Amino acid sequence: MQIGAASARGVLFVFFAHLQLLFAASPFSRLAVDNICGVAAEFRTGKSDLSFGDYDYGAFSMDATAELANGLNHAYMLISAFLVFFMQAGFAMLCAGSVRSKNVMNILIKNVLDACVGCMAFYFFGWGVAYGVDDDGEASSFIGAGSFFLSKNKANGGFSDWKGFIFQWAFAAAAATITSGAMAERTQFAAYLGYSFLLTAFVYPVVVHWVWDGNGWLSAWGDENKQAVIDFAGSGVVHMTGGVAGLMGAIMVGPRTGRFGPDGKAVPMPGHNAALVVLGTFILWVGWYGFNPGSQLAIADGASAEVTARVAVITTLAAAAGGVTAMGLHYALYKVWDLIAVCNGVLAGLVSITAGCPVIEPYAAVLAGAGGAVILWATGKLLLKLKIDDPLEAFAVHGACGAWAVIFTGLFATEGYVAQAYGAPWGKTEYGIFYGGSGALLGNQILEVFIIFVWVGAIMGGFFYSMKVAGYLRSSPEEEALGLDESKHGGSAYNMEKI
Amino acid sequence: MQIGAASARGVLFVFFAHLQLLFAASPFSRLAVDNICGVAAEFRTGKSDLSFGDYDYGAFSMDATAELANGLNHAYMLISAFLVFFMQAGFAMLCAGSVRSKNVMNILIKNVLDACVGCMAFYFFGWGVAYGVDDDGEASSFIGAGSFFLSKNKANGGFSDWKGFIFQWAFAAAAATITSGAMAERTQFAAYLGYSFLLTAFVYPVVVHWVWDGNGWLSAWGDENKQAVIDFAGSGVVHMTGGVAGLMGAIMVGPRTGRFGPDGKAVPMPGHNAALVVLGTFILWVGWYGFNPGSQLAIADGASAEVTARVAVITTLAAAAGGVTAMGLHYALYKVWDLIAVCNGVLAGLVSITAGCPVIEPYAAVLAGAGGAVILWATGKLLLKLKIDDPLEAFAVHGACGAWAVIFTGLFATEGYVAQAYGAPWGKTEYGIFYGGSGALLGNQILEVFIIFVWVGAIMGGFFYSMKVAGYLRSSPEEEALGLDESKHGGSAYNMEKI
Amino acid sequence: MQIGAASARGVLFVFFAHLQLLFAASPFSRLAVDNICGVAAEFRTGKSDLSFGDYDYGAFSMDATAELANGLNHAYMLISAFLVFFMQAGFAMLCAGSVRSKNVMNILIKNVLDACVGCMAFYFFGWGVAYGVDDDGEASSFIGAGSFFLSKNKANGGFSDWKGFIFQWAFAAAAATITSGAMAERTQFAAYLGYSFLLTAFVYPVVVHWVWDGNGWLSAWGDENKQAVIDFAGSGVVHMTGGVAGLMGAIMVGPRTGRFGPDGKAVPMPGHNAALVVLGTFILWVGWYGFNPGSQLAIADGASAEVTARVAVITTLAAAAGGVTAMGLHYALYKVWDLIAVCNGVLAGLVSITAGCPVIEPYAAVLAGAGGAVILWATGKLLLKLKIDDPLEAFAVHGACGAWAVIFTGLFATEGYVAQAYGAPWGKTEYGIFYGGSGALLGNQILEVFIIFVWVGAIMGGFFYSMKVAGYLRSSPEEEALGLDESKHGGSAYNMEKI
Repeated sequence: MQIGAASARGVLFVFFAHLQLLFAASPFSRLAVDNICGVAAEFRTGKSDLSFGDYDYGAFSMDATAELANGLNHAYMLISAFLVFFMQAGFAMLCAGSVRSKNVMNILIKNVLDACVGCMAFYFFGWGVAYGVDDDGEASSFIGAGSFFLSKNKANGGFSDWKGFIFQWAFAAAAATITSGAMAERTQFAAYLGYSFLLTAFVYPVVVHWVWDGNGWLSAWGDENKQAVIDFAGSGVVHMTGGVAGLMGAIMVGPRTGRFGPDGKAVPMPGHNAALVVLGTFILWVGWYGFNPGSQLAIADGASAEVTARVAVITTLAAAAGGVTAMGLHYALYKVWDLIAVCNGVLAGLVSITAGCPVIEPYAAVLAGAGGAVILWATGKLLLKLKIDDPLEAFAVHGACGAWAVIFTGLFATEGYVAQAYGAPWGKTEYGIFYGGSGALLGNQILEVFIIFVWVGAIMGGFFYSMKVAGYLRSSPEEEALGLDESKHGGSAYNMEKI
Repeated sequence: MQIGAASARGVLFVFFAHLQLLFAASPFSRLAVDNICGVAAEFRTGKSDLSFGDYDYGAFSMDATAELANGLNHAYMLISAFLVFFMQAGFAMLCAGSVRSKNVMNILIKNVLDACVGCMAFYFFGWGVAYGVDDDGEASSFIGAGSFFLSKNKANGGFSDWKGFIFQWAFAAAAATITSGAMAERTQFAAYLGYSFLLTAFVYPVVVHWVWDGNGWLSAWGDENKQAVIDFAGSGVVHMTGGVAGLMGAIMVGPRTGRFGPDGKAVPMPGHNAALVVLGTFILWVGWYGFNPGSQLAIADGASAEVTARVAVITTLAAAAGGVTAMGLHYALYKVWDLIAVCNGVLAGLVSITAGCPVIEPYAAVLAGAGGAVILWATGKLLLKLKIDDPLEAFAVHGACGAWAVIFTGLFATEGYVAQAYGAPWGKTEYGIFYGGSGALLGNQILEVFIIFVWVGAIMGGFFYSMKVAGYLRSSPEEEALGLDESKHGGSAYNMEKI
Repeated sequence: MQIGAASARGVLFVFFAHLQLLFAASPFSRLAVDNICGVAAEFRTGKSDLSFGDYDYGAFSMDATAELANGLNHAYMLISAFLVFFMQAGFAMLCAGSVRSKNVMNILIKNVLDACVGCMAFYFFGWGVAYGVDDDGEASSFIGAGSFFLSKNKANGGFSDWKGFIFQWAFAAAAATITSGAMAERTQFAAYLGYSFLLTAFVYPVVVHWVWDGNGWLSAWGDENKQAVIDFAGSGVVHMTGGVAGLMGAIMVGPRTGRFGPDGKAVPMPGHNAALVVLGTFILWVGWYGFNPGSQLAIADGASAEVTARVAVITTLAAAAGGVTAMGLHYALYKVWDLIAVCNGVLAGLVSITAGCPVIEPYAAVLAGAGGAVILWATGKLLLKLKIDDPLEAFAVHGACGAWAVIFTGLFATEGYVAQAYGAPWGKTEYGIFYGGSGALLGNQILEVFIIFVWVGAIMGGFFYSMKVAGYLRSSPEEEALGLDESKHGGSAYNMEKI
């Protein structure tokens, strides 16, 4: 919009505003409220590239209140996107602190490149796979069809959902980074470049399309008659996808040398810097306030404002409950006040609430987070029994707790909150069985868990297997012993002066 | 609000909007402006759980402009809350860097748990103690009465002030973390869990109720005829409370072994990582932009927007003046460009402006910050003379400068700014004696300092004394010598590969 | 504004609102839309201290929609300012990680003081030099004239552009910090204090006045008939200024002892902590989302919302392209996956898009970022050939890529985007020659690069030369060998317990 055009529209606005006086029952007055709510509604469908620039500037959309609502929603979504992107810094610090000092640059460069390669992949293909439509504005229920390279197409009059792109890219980068953690300290760099691109260009965006695009077959934000999964900010879409990909990678690449002793027992390989782990955890927690509350995609209307604020509180309660539970569990079992366990408990709590945050009660958030901490611990034990080495516990935190979160939502979603967050215009009314729901929601939630496991497991498993067979997956024993930093990245991450 | 309901309200809106045409002098047109201002006013009283969800959706409150103002205020308060929470990361890095490397995990787990345990404590009791009302919507002037566990009550038709809760929780966690710093490196973990819970569940929320809840006996945001303390973002409420609790703890637990030599002189125990101290300082500074400007609790109306922006500048000036003054002071005295002193000077400057930021002039902000740096230095010297060992200088920074800030406001608050920030509808007009004020404000400010010192000192002092007598307060000499990380937290924070 | 005054204005509002009914063609209805757009327009000129507090509260400006737009723009600009300030933490971590461990406290105290001293300098003089007007509201095209010490003057009825001050201060601190990096590890502290103050009080604000103040002779946001440089967020204004100052400093102070061997070849002096470098890079990237999108200075109107969101995406694409290109370039040349090179590539990409972000297409953003990574590499090689030692590659990243960004904008700015971002009311229409532009824009861009090089180079070069002659510039060989931390800052940044 040019400012000059604004003046022209102003004149039209005057005309219509006063035309309105002639028809006392005219619907024009409703526009202000409806536009605010409507903006939120259209945002959620994923079909609409609804930046203001694309409006057909008829009298209706010129409404000043709608313009302000658009501005406010832009501001809130952009800031949320920046917070989600900040999570990359959190993952980087968490990962760096959790590996041995000889592999720090290796994991850090992957974190930086998850944002960079992920951006290229999402720009080239990912966005189009997730949300693209063809020239008729259509897309299949399986995959998007257009907007590759942020290209223009007839249906939407040129790409314009800029805030949507940056928000979604930040999520995609998070999924890729989760995967990196599970394969840390022994994976070839070329293999990393491959899976990072594959995941952010195709595997992850397809899941996004299914669950979040209005055309997707599992989407709650589409037709009333479709499957309706409630996975608000992506416990399944993002965390399970990243976690399951990581599990496949960890299985295929095998455990770090020396991780399991001759007796099959796990040998501790503690990270090299607990301060970085805590810093990473706090940054991730802060970033989650973009992840979860930002996923409302709007805040200008009263309902969105309330949901967004409640989501922030619910998210906090689950994180705190996860941390406290992990503290108690580890002290009870091992008589140690375990800092790393508390940090992972916080993250488990956060993952465990990400699916259902707008539809569950505060007390249930505490249950979700506490349960997540237990599931994290149990999953970690199980993987060690199976001799699967996941240095960051990425599958336990993101995969297992992601599945827990999706299913938990099918149990504890309340009728009123579902109606508020997923009612009009999407017409979704199914809620949790613990509140008397029919079980249809729970069934759909289980279906999401199953289908993500199958889809991501099959494609990423196949990819990692191919890389393994081709000899591109695992670093050589010499490189691993020396450390990847010295062998591949030109030196050590740390160079302290002799004193 | 459900979107479906929005449409229904839209119809009502049309009706009333056009009814309006029949009565040219009708007050309906005023709603837009009044609602914006009114939202801010009601937010400040603390009595109103004013999320939009609670509106009686009559024609009046349906006003689209009010809905937008509500959305904008939600967005700003949520982001401010996230910034305040980010301060936990800042405290964690500041504390970690300031202790010896053998106690890093100990201080870090306390920082993480201040957020987690503090959340549970504030969810269970703290919020209700601070802002809760009974079923008739009443609360005493001493303590809140309801909304425990975010429960619903008749007076407000169900809990709804979600943004208020997350904002206040972040403040409570900050108070607890301040205390941790003063007792670092020699306190038992169980004692920590006790005081963290006690502080965030009861001691701190009571102070909040007094000063910030409209019902509190010291609140400026309540009845016109009450005591009116100006402690905008909590130099007294948050920083003095945390600092005085820390002082009591430091006295009761005693100095670290070896902190004072046989001659009674302090032996330097430098922190182990200056980079973490700087990182923490910067994060705290950034977080303070949620703390101070966010405490306006609204930004949609013109007055709030101006106050919020001015508060950001005033806060910056005080922080910078504190840093520069500390630099000059330490160079003049010791001929060292002292990085840690500059960092603490910045924090002292920030604490010193937190009470009065909306009511003082820029030049006075420079004075407040510079004075804070001097008070920090003098208080630090005094504590060493008294053989009180406060590893983070928590009392000097937060306690002493907190008191300085509260009293400074009684001296330098300008008439015009008080009228702008505390005038209508609260009717507060008292300003600083240096501008010709009557002294009533200064008297109230001194009363706040006194009463916080007594309240927090008595309860927390009593608690720490009981713990000491029961043998739960101080770590054993062996644990302290070995380091708390090895003895209680399962190993060292750092594990560097041999190269 | 007092709330009481709001009520009084409400009455006036009612009067005018209903008066409006009598004149169907009255222009009053246009106010809502026009005010939103107008707010953005006036913000950009730099002349208007347009906080709401300064409004002549006639019926027009009381419009509720304009008040909300003002609130929203305040919120967005404040948060953007906080993000830009957060970059100081990023620079601090980047610089600390990039120097040797014996000079960490030295570089960190400079980073902290760049914010503190910079604040004092900008409060005393800088703001007035950049944006000040005299009592008649005038300023020359070369330098501002008033508002020193945030003083009041008749023209604007008292200082009120609080959000503008904090936003601009954060930019000024960034420029000073860029300079510090180029002179790290061998510069006297007194010299630093001098150039930091000089830069933020005078040299940098003059450039700001030229390019960003509506009165400036190069400003695109002023008269239609003036030179119009497109330097949206300051690739030239901020980054070239800091980078050229750093280059002058690095030349004058000479290379670190041992940086060049007897054969003239550069001896690697790797930084001491790669994790801090990555943390700094991510924080800078996050902060850039305040730097670039925030430079729209408004988000309430539809055009600003779209530009802001697009700028965020464009910025991301350039950063990612810079990182990926640096990765490929260094692997192709040296067979190393070079973490530090990738980090610097990201920063080069960010600098390379900062001038033109609102006026170039996504594909061009990729070109700009990729080109920046190449220019960074080539400039680094060139400086080593010339035996100029720039430890942080500050000139390569900020100076060279800053110039590249400004010139790139003259090549790739599209006609439509220029019209959107710089059309009405500023009447600027010149666009890039690759899209058929006349070359006038490109000429102006080259002029900006030239004039910043001359201005900053001459003044800062002269200053550094004077300091050198006076013996205040370079640390003594003994201090440098021992490390500046031990010799000047009271000890080492790191104190690890023996285990």
